[in-house]
Amino acid sequence: MEAPVTRTGTGPRRADAIYAATLELLAAHGYDGLTMEAVAQRSGVNKTTLYRWWPSKDALFAAALTTADILAITIPDTGTLRGDLLALATDIARLLTAEATAPIVTAVLAAAPTRPQLAATGRAFFAERLAREQSVFTRAVERGELSASASASAIMDMLAGALWFRLMLRAEPLTAAYVETSVGIILDGVGSQGH
Amino acid sequence: MEAPVTRTGTGPRRADAIYAATLELLAAHGYDGLTMEAVAQRSGVNKTTLYRWWPSKDALFAAALTTADILAITIPDTGTLRGDLLALATDIARLLTAEATAPIVTAVLAAAPTRPQLAATGRAFFAERLAREQSVFTRAVERGELSASASASAIMDMLAGALWFRLMLRAEPLTAAYVETSVGIILDGVGSQGH
Repeated sequence: MEAPVTRTGTGPRRADAIYAATLELLAAHGYDGLTMEAVAQRSGVNKTTLYRWWPSKDALFAAALTTADILAITIPDTGTLRGDLLALATDIARLLTAEATAPIVTAVLAAAPTRPQLAATGRAFFAERLAREQSVFTRAVERGELSASASASAIMDMLAGALWFRLMLRAEPLTAAYVETSVGIILDGVGSQGH
Repeated sequence: MEAPVTRTGTGPRRADAIYAATLELLAAHGYDGLTMEAVAQRSGVNKTTLYRWWPSKDALFAAALTTADILAITIPDTGTLRGDLLALATDIARLLTAEATAPIVTAVLAAAPTRPQLAATGRAFFAERLAREQSVFTRAVERGELSASASASAIMDMLAGALWFRLMLRAEPLTAAYVETSVGIILDGVGSQGH
């Protein structure tokens, strides 16, 4: 018998265990190996309950991804835009390479390009993340370090993209020097008028 | 009977047909669906010949990827670093989204993260590409637009990464405005000292 399920804002009472099981299965077996059956078994919640909350594997995956603590990043407040971007980039690099999170990130990256139904999940995940990161840019504008017209999403996509690309496509390690160079380019540019 | 095979610098005489078949199968069926058997059938070359030149599917894929004309980019010479980076970024955006190339790029992106044996291919592909792009940066240094110590690989990883990330992970379209913003950030930076 499973424990009684109580409605909350985000899912059944055992949502944390269900999300953890979802990401563990994803990391171990890839998106194809992630099934509602396996999540039910691993989390000790029956399949009917899962389907009552999430109509499909895609929906459960989206909820797990956006809610999981393990993929959360810390929003820094170091007092400078440079310090904050360096902290964000270091945190993203950690997520991409740490033992607990790299297999999840890798499985998501492998699954996303060939599954158009995951596009909405990508948009939701990064929109939520950008909303949390916004304070970094608001404070930088207040301190006079950043123009109010600067695009926070372009800055973050470029910073995260530089790290993803170097690690996943060029297949080179993410060194502290590379993280620092990336932040330096975003802040100062490489053109001679920026120096 | 297949046509007689002649040795060249890069493979048998029918190498172009073999590479084309490899990338078509990859685009249609993903990396798992790419087999030596299917390439042999599609290109009309027997399997023994394929194995004589490429000991494995991974080796054939690496050769196809680095040699294929369809994935080539044009090295621009517009007279300014801004113009050249804009042309490169526009060309990369085209590869990522055009009907003929997007399925290949997508299949590669889906295959790479979970197959460590493809890391060497990624490194070789982007190293060859960077070597070709180097002239853009050499000319910019000569014109006084770029410091000689600037890292061409960091600039290209950041530019390509910004496009990959926006399209594949944030799942947003690559607009001309975004391409221009990305080039602008790389050249001028977003920090107030850059303006």
